Amino acid sequence: MNEHANHTLTVGLGERSYPIEIGHGVLERLPHIIGELSEGGRTAIITDENVNAQHGDVLRAVLDKAGIEHCTLAVAPGEASKSWSVFQQVVEELLSFRLERQDLVIAFGGGVVGDLAGFAASVVRRGMRFVQIPTSLLAQVDSSVGGKTGINSASGKNLVGAFHQPSHVLIDLDFLRSLPAREFRAGYAEVVKYGLIGYSDFFDALCEKHEEIFAFGPMLETAIAQSCQAKAEIVAADETEKNKRALLNLGHTFGHALEGFTSYDGKRLVHGEGVAIGMMLAHQFSNRLNLCSMDDVQRVETHLKAVGLPTRIQDIPGEQPSVETLMSFIEQDKKVSRGRLTFILTKGVGQAYIANDVQAAEVAGFLKDKIGS
Amino acid sequence: MNEHANHTLTVGLGERSYPIEIGHGVLERLPHIIGELSEGGRTAIITDENVNAQHGDVLRAVLDKAGIEHCTLAVAPGEASKSWSVFQQVVEELLSFRLERQDLVIAFGGGVVGDLAGFAASVVRRGMRFVQIPTSLLAQVDSSVGGKTGINSASGKNLVGAFHQPSHVLIDLDFLRSLPAREFRAGYAEVVKYGLIGYSDFFDALCEKHEEIFAFGPMLETAIAQSCQAKAEIVAADETEKNKRALLNLGHTFGHALEGFTSYDGKRLVHGEGVAIGMMLAHQFSNRLNLCSMDDVQRVETHLKAVGLPTRIQDIPGEQPSVETLMSFIEQDKKVSRGRLTFILTKGVGQAYIANDVQAAEVAGFLKDKIGS
Repeated sequence: MNEHANHTLTVGLGERSYPIEIGHGVLERLPHIIGELSEGGRTAIITDENVNAQHGDVLRAVLDKAGIEHCTLAVAPGEASKSWSVFQQVVEELLSFRLERQDLVIAFGGGVVGDLAGFAASVVRRGMRFVQIPTSLLAQVDSSVGGKTGINSASGKNLVGAFHQPSHVLIDLDFLRSLPAREFRAGYAEVVKYGLIGYSDFFDALCEKHEEIFAFGPMLETAIAQSCQAKAEIVAADETEKNKRALLNLGHTFGHALEGFTSYDGKRLVHGEGVAIGMMLAHQFSNRLNLCSMDDVQRVETHLKAVGLPTRIQDIPGEQPSVETLMSFIEQDKKVSRGRLTFILTKGVGQAYIANDVQAAEVAGFLKDKIGS
Repeated sequence: MNEHANHTLTVGLGERSYPIEIGHGVLERLPHIIGELSEGGRTAIITDENVNAQHGDVLRAVLDKAGIEHCTLAVAPGEASKSWSVFQQVVEELLSFRLERQDLVIAFGGGVVGDLAGFAASVVRRGMRFVQIPTSLLAQVDSSVGGKTGINSASGKNLVGAFHQPSHVLIDLDFLRSLPAREFRAGYAEVVKYGLIGYSDFFDALCEKHEEIFAFGPMLETAIAQSCQAKAEIVAADETEKNKRALLNLGHTFGHALEGFTSYDGKRLVHGEGVAIGMMLAHQFSNRLNLCSMDDVQRVETHLKAVGLPTRIQDIPGEQPSVETLMSFIEQDKKVSRGRLTFILTKGVGQAYIANDVQAAEVAGFLKDKIGS
C-alpha cells in the first residue's frame, strides 16, 4: 500500500480549484488534507449504512490517529435517500452538531452519498466546505468530481440541488475491492463514456486492456485517472453546464428515461447500466440520422458486451416500456430548452456533440423501431 | 409617477454584477428588464397572501400588458413561511410549472418572501435567475440586495440557505404607501444601521431629515438609495461574509436573541425593532468596554426614540427574558467562530468594527446590568 498518491490532478476553477488524488491507500493522506483546509477543524462524515459497516471504522481510525474530531451520519443505502426528508434530516443533524463554517463535511460513499452530502454542505450556514471520498467506481470516475450535488424531486431526478465544488477529492482504489461486480461494471460504463465523448485513443486502450481493469491491474488506476482528467477539463471549461459540460450527458437522456420507467429499481437497472444502454441508443440514433457509421455502433456494442454491460432495452428484466412512457420521461428531462430536445449525438467514437434541435417525433420513431424489434 | 428610475446603482460582483433601480413607479420597467434577461422567458411570481392581495394585480397587469407569461405562488405571510415544508412546496411547484433554466423567478414581497424565493430559485435545476421586487422598507434597504437567501432551522434562524445573487433589484417606492406604520419604522432601523456602521454623515442627515422620510418626501428615496449604495459596496467587497460584510450584523446578535426569546412573535417584536434595541445594546456594550463615548450612545438613543423605535429590552411587551435565555441564543448564533463570540462593536457613530474575541462572560455581565436595571 503506497502512502502517497500516484496521480494528482487539478480541477481548474480559479479560487474554487481543487485537487483530485488517486491511488491505492491515499486515504492515509486525509489528516494532512484536513490540516491544510481547516487547522484544528472538526469533521462530519456523511455515509450510508453499507459503506459505514464496511469501511467506516477504517476512516475513523485514520481520523482518530491524527486526533481529528469527527461524528458520523449514516443514511439508508440507495437512491431513495436523495429525498427531501433525508436531506432535511442530514442538514438539521449537521447543524445540531454545532459545526462551524470553517469545519468540514466528508462525503464518504457512492454517488448517492456524494450528491446528498454535497448539497447538504452547500446549504448549511449558506455553504460549508466538503471533501469527497468516493468508494464506488461510478463515484470515483464521475459524480465526485465537478460539484453537481442534489436530490430528486417529484418532477424528476436531480432537479433540486446546487453547484457546490468539493475542496478535495480523495480516490482510494482499495475501496473498490469490496464493490459488488455488478456495481463495478456499472461504474465502468461511465469510464467508457469519456472515450466515446472525445477521447478515441482512450476508448481504444479500454478495448485493449479492459481485462486488466477488471482484474485490478495497473490499468485500473490509469483508467480512473484518465476519466477524472477528462471530467476535470470539461468542468473547468464549463462549470455550470451552459454548453460543453452537457457532453457528459451522453447516453443519459435515454438512460434516465429507462431508470424512470423502472422506478429506479436497482434490482432491474442501476444507473451505469441505464447509461450503457443509453449510449448504445445514442449511437444507433446518430447512425439513423446518418451522423455516425454502423462500424462505430458495432465497436461500442462489442466493447460493452465484452465487459458484460447491457446494450439493449430488452436486456432490462421484466415488463418492457412503451414508446409513450419513455417519451414522457425524455420530455420531462431537464435537458430541455425552450421546448426543443437537447441530445448528445455523435459523429463516431470520440466525436460526440450537443444537438439542441432534436425533434421529439424523430426520437419517438427511433424508439418505436427499437422496442418493436 | 415617473416611468424611469431616479437612481440606478450597481452591485459589482464580476459576472454576477447586477443593477438596483430605485424610484416611484419603476415597476413599469419590469417588462424591459425581463426582455433583457430572458427574451421570451416565462416567470413565476413568489409572494405572500397579503402582498398578493394588495399589489398582485398591479404586477400581473404590467406583465400581461407586455405579453409575459406568469404564474403566482402565494405563501402565508410571516416568518413561519421560512420553513422546510413551505420551501419544499415552493420548489416543487416551481418545478411543476415546468420552468426552464432560462426562465425567471420574481420575489415579490418583504424579507421573508425574498429569502424564501431566492433560496428556492438557487436550488431549482441547480440555480435559476431571479428578480427582487421588494415591497417593504426593510427588504428595499437590506434583504433584497446582497444574495443572502435561506430558511430557518430547528437550530436557529437563517442557518439553511445559499448565497444566490438576484439578476436585478427593482425598488418601487410606491409600494411603501400601503405599508403599516410599524413595519415602515422597523425597516427604518436598518437605514439607521448604515449610518452607524460607517457613514456618520448619513446618520447626521437622517437625524436632520427623518420627518421628511416618514412623510414620504424626497429624502425617502435618497435614504433608500444611500442605504443600497452602502450595502452594495460592502457586498462587493466581501460577498460571502468572510470579513467586512459582518459589519451589517451590527445590533443583530442581540436582536436575534431577543427575537428568539419572543419566539419570533411579530405582535411583540418585529425584526427591525429587535435590531433597534440590539444596536442600542451594541453601543452601550461598546461604551462599557471603553470603546465609544456616552455621547455617541445618547445620539443613537435620541434618534431611535425620535422616530418611535424601541431602545430597551424593557420596551418589549410581556414577560422579560433572563440573562441565561439570551446567552443561550447568543451562543447559538451562527456568528460564532471556534467557540469565541464575534460581535460588531463600535468606536462611535460610523465607526463599527468586527471583534472576534468577545468573552461570553463579559456579555453576560453586561446583560445582567441591563436586565436588572
